[in-house]
Amino acid sequence: MIQVAINGYGTIGKRVADAVREQPDMEVVGVAKTRPNFEAETALEKGFSLYAAIEERADQFAEAGLEIAGPVEDLVDEADVVVDATPSGIGAENKAMYEEYDTPALYQGGEDADLVDVSFNARSNFEDAVDADHVRVVSCNTTGLSRVLAPLREAYGVEKVRATLVRRGGDPGQTSRGPINDILPNPVTIPSHHGPDVETIFDDLDIDTLGMKVPATLMHMHSLNVTLSEEVDASEVRDLFADESRLFLIPERMDIDGSGKLKEYAMDAGRPRGDIWENCIWEESISTVGTDLYLFQGIHQESDVVPENVDAIRAVLGAADAEESIATTDETMGIGL
Amino acid sequence: MIQVAINGYGTIGKRVADAVREQPDMEVVGVAKTRPNFEAETALEKGFSLYAAIEERADQFAEAGLEIAGPVEDLVDEADVVVDATPSGIGAENKAMYEEYDTPALYQGGEDADLVDVSFNARSNFEDAVDADHVRVVSCNTTGLSRVLAPLREAYGVEKVRATLVRRGGDPGQTSRGPINDILPNPVTIPSHHGPDVETIFDDLDIDTLGMKVPATLMHMHSLNVTLSEEVDASEVRDLFADESRLFLIPERMDIDGSGKLKEYAMDAGRPRGDIWENCIWEESISTVGTDLYLFQGIHQESDVVPENVDAIRAVLGAADAEESIATTDETMGIGL
Repeated sequence: MIQVAINGYGTIGKRVADAVREQPDMEVVGVAKTRPNFEAETALEKGFSLYAAIEERADQFAEAGLEIAGPVEDLVDEADVVVDATPSGIGAENKAMYEEYDTPALYQGGEDADLVDVSFNARSNFEDAVDADHVRVVSCNTTGLSRVLAPLREAYGVEKVRATLVRRGGDPGQTSRGPINDILPNPVTIPSHHGPDVETIFDDLDIDTLGMKVPATLMHMHSLNVTLSEEVDASEVRDLFADESRLFLIPERMDIDGSGKLKEYAMDAGRPRGDIWENCIWEESISTVGTDLYLFQGIHQESDVVPENVDAIRAVLGAADAEESIATTDETMGIGL
Repeated sequence: MIQVAINGYGTIGKRVADAVREQPDMEVVGVAKTRPNFEAETALEKGFSLYAAIEERADQFAEAGLEIAGPVEDLVDEADVVVDATPSGIGAENKAMYEEYDTPALYQGGEDADLVDVSFNARSNFEDAVDADHVRVVSCNTTGLSRVLAPLREAYGVEKVRATLVRRGGDPGQTSRGPINDILPNPVTIPSHHGPDVETIFDDLDIDTLGMKVPATLMHMHSLNVTLSEEVDASEVRDLFADESRLFLIPERMDIDGSGKLKEYAMDAGRPRGDIWENCIWEESISTVGTDLYLFQGIHQESDVVPENVDAIRAVLGAADAEESIATTDETMGIGL
C-alpha cells in the first residue's frame, strides 16, 4: 500500500485525502494543518491522524482539544509520497523538508513551474512524471484546458488556441474576496498566466488566454476557441469528447443553464461536497466554423485537480501506467457523470 | 430646428431626450410614455411635453396628477423625426403609425434588422442612412464592436473577429433579472446574435461571437480578438484608437480595474447619470501576437447608443454629414474622456 501524506488540509487537501482513502492501493498516513479550525475537527472525526504543520503552534491544537500525532516532519518521514496542498508559495518553502526526508512531493498549480521537474496532467503527460521527485499538478484552469486540448491535438492537430477565462471571484468559503457587482479584466494585461501555464504541459502549443473575474463563487467558465489543423464537423468533436471520462458533455435535455444547476445536479447525484471533477462542456455549444472550434466549459475550481493528484501519486512512484491509474481513480471516485 | 419626438421614455429614451435638447439644431417636441411612474414625473419637471403612448391609459396619468399633451399620434404628426425607444418588439408594432404620418423613424437595437432600411453606426456607415425612412441604431454591444472595427478595417484590414461578450445580467433598475452568483453561457449556442448583428453594419465581415451573463449591472465587458490583415505593433493600434473620439483609452496611471471605478470616474467628472458614452478600452490590454490583436473593453449598456441616436437624426434628414454631426454631438454632450 502506498503511504500518502497530505500537507495542507484546506480546499484541495481535504478532498485529496478523501479520494486517496478510496483507492485500493493507497493509505493516508495523516494530514497536516497549521491551525485548529472546523476542517481540523472534521479531519479527526473522519479518523485521519492530524499533524502540526508549524511546530510552535502545536499548543493551539491542544488548547482546542484536538489531538496531534506529531510534527509534519514525522508525517513526511513516514510517507512514500507527500501531497503538498498548502497555499501558493508555501509549497516552495516546504521543498527542502521533502528533500531532507527523501520523500517525493506533489505540489499544486499555485507554485511556480520552475520549482519542479514536471508539470502534470494525467490525460496529457502522465509518463513524464514517472520517478520524478518534484511534480506540480497544474491548476484547475490549466487542467481543464489540457483535458480538452490533449484529445484535439491527437485527433486533428491544433494550430492555435484562444481562450477567455471568466473566473469566479473566490470560493464559497473565501468571504473576503470580490468583486461585488463588477466584471474585472484580470489581469488587464494579455496574455493571462494561464496560456504559458498550459505550455508547461504542451511545450509546442500556440495559446493566448485572457482572464476576467466576476461576482460568482461556484465555477469558472471558459469561452474556448481552438483553430484545428483540419476542418472537422462539430458532431465528430462531440463524439471524440464523449469518449473522455473526465469531460462531461451536458446534454440539452437536462436544461442546465449555468454553474448553479450543475452544482445542484452534482449534489442530487450524491457527489461528496457537490464536487464536479469533470470539465462540464455544454454539448450544444460545440460548434465549428471552418477550422475554428468553439465551446463553453465550466470548471469546478475546488475539485477538478483532485483525481489528477491521485494519478500523480501513482506516476511518481511508477505504481501504474496512465490508463490503469486513470481507470482506477475514475472507478473509485465515481467519475463520469 | 429639427423637431424630434421621443416615443418611449425609459432607459434610452430619457437619455436621448436630454442629448437632443443639448443640440443647437434640434428641439424635443415631446416624449411619449405608456404609464405614469417616476420617469414620467421627471419628464414633466424637466419641461418635456408628455404624450400618452396608449390612449386608453391616458386617464392613469390624470389620476396621478400628470398633465398629458395628447396621444402619441399627435406627437408623431408634429415631429420631423421620431426616435422609438420602446421595449424590443414594440418598435415593430409602431412602424405603421410612423408610416401613416410620414415621419421618418429611428428604432433601437432590440428590433429585427429586417424591420428597417438601414442598421446604423455613426462612425461606420452614416451615409447609408441619409434619407432612409426606417433606421435601426444598433445595440450597445454592436455599437461598441463597430466603433473599434471601423478604424481597424480602414487602417489594416480585418481577416476575422472573435469576441466573448461578458454581459451584465440587467441594468441597475431591472430588479427582477439575474443571475445571482452564477456565470451563464448565454446563449449556450454559438454564435450569439451579436456577430450577425455586427454584419448588418459591415456585410463582408467574418465574425464569431460568444455571449455570457454574469451577476453585474454596471457595464458589459468584451474580450476581443481581431486577426488583422497585417502584423501591427500594439503601440500603433493605441495611436489609431487615441484619434477616435468615442474610444476612451483607460491609462494605466488611473488605476481603474473594472466597471465600478469607471462609473465612479464618470460620476466624479459630472457626467449626467454617470453615463459613459465611449467604449472604455484598457490601454494596457491592447496587445498583438503576430496578426492577432487582443483587448478588453467595457461598454455602458445604458448610454453608448445615445450619441448614435443623435447622429442618426441628422443622417435621416440629410442635415449634416458624418464628420459634422459627430463633432457637434461630441462637443455638445461633452464626449471624449
